[in-house]
Amino acid sequence: MSQLEAVLKHIDRNLDQSLDRLFALLRIQSISTDPAYRAQCRAAAEHVAADLKSIGFAADVRSTAGHPIVVGKAPNGTGPRVLFYGHYDVQPVDPLELWKTPPFEPKIETLPDGRKVIVARGACDDKGQAMTFIEACRAWKAVTGKLPLPVTMLIEGEEECGSKHLFGFVRDHADEFRLDLALVCDTSMWSTDTPAITTSLRGLVYEEVRLTCADRDLHSGLFGGAAQNPIRVLTKILAAMHDDSGRVTIPGFYDGVKEPAADVKAELAGLNLTAEKFLGQVGLKIPAGEKDRMLIEQISTRPTAEINGIVGGYTGEGAKTVIPGAAMAKVSFRLVGEQNPNKVRDAFRAFVRARLPADCTAEFANFADAPAIALSYDNPALDKARTALAAEWNTKAVTIGAGGSIPIVGDFKSMLGMDSLLVGFALDDDRVHSPNEKFDLKCYHKGIRSWARILAALAG
Amino acid sequence: MSQLEAVLKHIDRNLDQSLDRLFALLRIQSISTDPAYRAQCRAAAEHVAADLKSIGFAADVRSTAGHPIVVGKAPNGTGPRVLFYGHYDVQPVDPLELWKTPPFEPKIETLPDGRKVIVARGACDDKGQAMTFIEACRAWKAVTGKLPLPVTMLIEGEEECGSKHLFGFVRDHADEFRLDLALVCDTSMWSTDTPAITTSLRGLVYEEVRLTCADRDLHSGLFGGAAQNPIRVLTKILAAMHDDSGRVTIPGFYDGVKEPAADVKAELAGLNLTAEKFLGQVGLKIPAGEKDRMLIEQISTRPTAEINGIVGGYTGEGAKTVIPGAAMAKVSFRLVGEQNPNKVRDAFRAFVRARLPADCTAEFANFADAPAIALSYDNPALDKARTALAAEWNTKAVTIGAGGSIPIVGDFKSMLGMDSLLVGFALDDDRVHSPNEKFDLKCYHKGIRSWARILAALAG
Repeated sequence: MSQLEAVLKHIDRNLDQSLDRLFALLRIQSISTDPAYRAQCRAAAEHVAADLKSIGFAADVRSTAGHPIVVGKAPNGTGPRVLFYGHYDVQPVDPLELWKTPPFEPKIETLPDGRKVIVARGACDDKGQAMTFIEACRAWKAVTGKLPLPVTMLIEGEEECGSKHLFGFVRDHADEFRLDLALVCDTSMWSTDTPAITTSLRGLVYEEVRLTCADRDLHSGLFGGAAQNPIRVLTKILAAMHDDSGRVTIPGFYDGVKEPAADVKAELAGLNLTAEKFLGQVGLKIPAGEKDRMLIEQISTRPTAEINGIVGGYTGEGAKTVIPGAAMAKVSFRLVGEQNPNKVRDAFRAFVRARLPADCTAEFANFADAPAIALSYDNPALDKARTALAAEWNTKAVTIGAGGSIPIVGDFKSMLGMDSLLVGFALDDDRVHSPNEKFDLKCYHKGIRSWARILAALAG
Repeated sequence: MSQLEAVLKHIDRNLDQSLDRLFALLRIQSISTDPAYRAQCRAAAEHVAADLKSIGFAADVRSTAGHPIVVGKAPNGTGPRVLFYGHYDVQPVDPLELWKTPPFEPKIETLPDGRKVIVARGACDDKGQAMTFIEACRAWKAVTGKLPLPVTMLIEGEEECGSKHLFGFVRDHADEFRLDLALVCDTSMWSTDTPAITTSLRGLVYEEVRLTCADRDLHSGLFGGAAQNPIRVLTKILAAMHDDSGRVTIPGFYDGVKEPAADVKAELAGLNLTAEKFLGQVGLKIPAGEKDRMLIEQISTRPTAEINGIVGGYTGEGAKTVIPGAAMAKVSFRLVGEQNPNKVRDAFRAFVRARLPADCTAEFANFADAPAIALSYDNPALDKARTALAAEWNTKAVTIGAGGSIPIVGDFKSMLGMDSLLVGFALDDDRVHSPNEKFDLKCYHKGIRSWARILAALAG
C-alpha cells in the first residue's frame, strides 16, 4: 500500500473523529461583524491554533486591531512551499427564527434525497471547508509522521466583515507568506459529483453616481417640459451603456479582455450549462448578456456592467408630480483578464460626463476597484490538482471562472507574486450566509481525501 | 359717475374692512388633509356661508362624506349666469419652525422692495383669491343693491386633499351648477404689473410601472452577465421615451395636439420668456424640451412625458452587489389639446410591454387621467374679461396656458358642458403651499377691482 493509500484509509477510518473536531469548531459563535462576539472570535482563533499545534504546526494567534489571525508553520521537507488561506469567522445568524435547529449546535441530518448533511452556521463557509485541509494534514502527519511538503497556514477572522486587517497584516509580514503557491478552500464544486478548480475570479469596480440638475425639487405642472429631469438624464446614460447585442459601449471597456484558448472554450462548451438549469432556478429564461456568448462565458469569463441600484424623485404610494433635483445610481463592473480597474472607473466617469447637459453635474464615489485574478493554465499545480481530483471523484475536474471576487487572492498575486489554487467543495444548495447552512457529509469526507491527494501530487 | 366707477370708489374706500374680513377667514385653521382640523373646516364653511348671506346670497353649508361645501345663490337680473368656484381649505403649515410669524395670525408686512403683503397660510391660495371675488360682489351689492348678473357660488373644502367629494357633488346636483360660464380665481398673473387669463390647463396621466425579472434578488458575482436586470430594462425603456430632439416617441402620443393659431403663437413669442428668467431661478440654464419649441410652449402648450420617480436595487450607503428582482418608476404625461388620456395611458403601457424581455413582467397602476382644458378663443367672455383687465391694470392682459391641471375645471366642461374663465392674481413669489405664504396687498385690492369690472363687462 502506498503512503497515499494508507493516508486515505486513515481518513476513512477516522471520519467520526474528524466530524467531532469540526463540530467543536462549529460550536464557537465566532460572528466577526458583531462586537458582542469578540471573545468568541478569539476563542475560535485559539481553538484553531491549538488544533494546528496538535498536528505539529508551530502555530500562534497574532493580534490585530480587529480579530486575531492564526498563523501555523510546518516546514517539512523540500517540496514547493504552500500557503493555505481560510477563515474561522462566520456570518450572523439572523433571522434566527428561520433556523430549524440552533445554528451553533451542529447536527447531521438526512435530506429527502438521502444525502447526509452537516447543519450549522459555518458548516460550509468556511469552517467545514478549512477543516477539509486541516484534516488532510492531520492524516498525513498521523500516517507518515510529517506533511508531504512545507505548509504555512493563514486563518483569519474577518473574512465575513471585509478582511479589514488582513491586507496590512500580509503586507507587513510579506516574508512569511511569500511562498510558492497559495491554496484556498472557499469555492464550489461544479455539481454533487463533479469537482471544480476555480481558475479565475472576476474583478470588481463599484461606482456610485449622483446627478444634480435643478437646485431643488420642481413641480412638473409648472416646470414640466422645460426643466431638465435628472432621472431622465440618468436613465438615458445608463441605457446607453449596453448596445442591442448586450455589449458594453463604454470606450476602452474591453481593453485587456482576452479570448480564451480554443481548448478552454471547448471545455466551457462541454459543461453544457443551459439557461433552463442556471436561470430557471430564479424564474428567468433568457440569458441577458452578450448575445454571441455562451451563458457560461457570460457569468465567468466575460466582463459585465450592472446597475445595482437606482433612486430618484417620488417613490412612495400614489402620485406626486415632482421633477426631482437629483438622482442616484450604483453601477458595478465585473472585470476579467487584464482589465485595469482604474481605467474602467475613469472610462465610466468620462462616459457619464460626456452625456451630461451643461447645466447638470455628476458626483462619483468608488467602493471597489479589484482586478480580475486568473491562474495560468501553464501552472503545473493546476494539472497536478486536476489529476488528484479526477482520481478521487472518478470524473474530470472542471476548471471554472467564478463570477465574484475574493480580494485577498488578488493581493497574494499583486503583493506577493503568488498564484492561488482554488479548490472548494461547496454545493449550490449549501445556503451559505442564510439560515440552515449545511455542508454535505460526502463533500467533507471526499474534500479531506481530495486535499490529501493534492498535497501528495504537489509534492511529487 | 357710472355705476362701475361708484363701485370701484366704494372698494377703495372700504379696503381696510375688506382686509378685516379676509383676516377673519385666514384665522380659521381649515387644514383639510388633517382629520384633527375637521371642526375648523366646518367653521370656515359656516363663516363663508354667513358672509355670503350678508351680501344677499341664499347660502347654505352642504354636508358631504368629507368636508362640507358652501353653495350660495344670488339670481339677480337676466345676464349670463356665472358659477364662481373657490375653496376655503388650506395646506398644512409644517415645517412650522420656518414661519416667521404664526401661519394663522395674518399680518401686513412690507418687503424690502416696498411691496406690502398679507402673510398667512391661505393668504393667496385660495382664501385671498376667493375673497377678491366675494368683495367685488359685496361692493356691487352695497352700491347698487344687487349684483350685475346672476351668480352662484361653489366654495369647497377639499381642494388641497384631492377634491374627493366635489366631483360627485357636482354630478349629483348638476342642475344647480349647469350655468353659462364658470369663473375661477386660483391662478397667477404674468408679472406684478401684467394680469393674465389662463386659457388652457394641461391634462395629466400618471402611471406607475413595476418590472419584475428574477423572482428574487440575485448576487451579481454569481448571476451578473446572464440574469436580466430590471433596472437595466427599465432605464432602457424610459430612455427610449424621448428622441434626441426632445420629442416623445410613444406611438400616437401627439394625436390631438394642435398647432396654436399664428396670432396666439405670436403673442406667446411676445412674452419673451427667457431661459435665464424662467430656469435661472432654480439653477438651470438650458430648456430641456422639444428643441424646435419656445420655452413658453414647452411649459404650456406642448405635452410632456416626465419620470417623477424611480427606485430599484440597493440605494443605501456603500456597495451591495445585487441584481434586484424588481424595479419601479412613476411616469406622468402632461396633455394638451384633444389628447385622450386613456389612449395615452394605453400607448404608454404598450410601449413598455413591447420592450420587455420575454421572461420579465410589467404591472401598472394609474393615478390620474385628466384631459387638457382650453377656453375657446371665440368665447365672448374672454374678450370682455381682457378689456376689463386692461382697464384696471393699464396694460394688455396676456392669455397663458398653465402647465398644471385643476381637475374640477375639466369636470365643468365634461359634465356640465360649461367653459371656465380663469383669472387669478397670484405671483410667482407667493410661496403657495410653503412657509410664509403671502398675497400682495396690491393684488388683493386690484383683484377685487378687476372682478368688479369683469362682472360689469360680462353683464353688458
